[in-house]
Amino acid sequence: MTFQQLDGASVNPQANVYFDGKCVSHSLSWPDGTKKSVGVVLPASLTFNTGAPEVMECVAGGCEYRLAGTQEWRRCGPGERFAIDGNSSFDIRVAEAFHYICHFG
Amino acid sequence: MTFQQLDGASVNPQANVYFDGKCVSHSLSWPDGTKKSVGVVLPASLTFNTGAPEVMECVAGGCEYRLAGTQEWRRCGPGERFAIDGNSSFDIRVAEAFHYICHFG
Repeated sequence: MTFQQLDGASVNPQANVYFDGKCVSHSLSWPDGTKKSVGVVLPASLTFNTGAPEVMECVAGGCEYRLAGTQEWRRCGPGERFAIDGNSSFDIRVAEAFHYICHFG
Repeated sequence: MTFQQLDGASVNPQANVYFDGKCVSHSLSWPDGTKKSVGVVLPASLTFNTGAPEVMECVAGGCEYRLAGTQEWRRCGPGERFAIDGNSSFDIRVAEAFHYICHFG
């Protein structure tokens, strides 16, 4: 599955490095105020906290995730997405790599 | 030092993951055919091979590098850059993190 490019983006060239590099992303913005990031989670079990609400969209690979306050692990593969409330968190388990677009707000 | 954003880019949302994640980059392109990538090298000693000629520009952190066929390690810090011939290679040593823009062609 080949994902379409994100066009017309302003790219912050400094990466966001989380969890000793288990997650690396680059922040993107657009003239209309839209903000996204593109990133990858490498094999790991991690917990992410959200500030703004987020939608995580898988572009390659996959993960299992569990939203705060829920028991169930769900799978997210290419073309699928999941939403996380603001000021919340989610657990994520990645066996190979999880390439994603994070949509904010 | 805060680097200016790269504007008007088309972003490939799938990361390039090298050396088990010691280097992660995202590929960018522009309508005029310009290609760059933005990436980060985490603490490691690595050897990169080039296809096209490249200019590596440091946006944060730093590295030491040694071009193929040379003996000397040189330092590259924020705002500095170094050029690598096509079909060549360079060694790189990173103690913290090396955030870069790679300019191709």
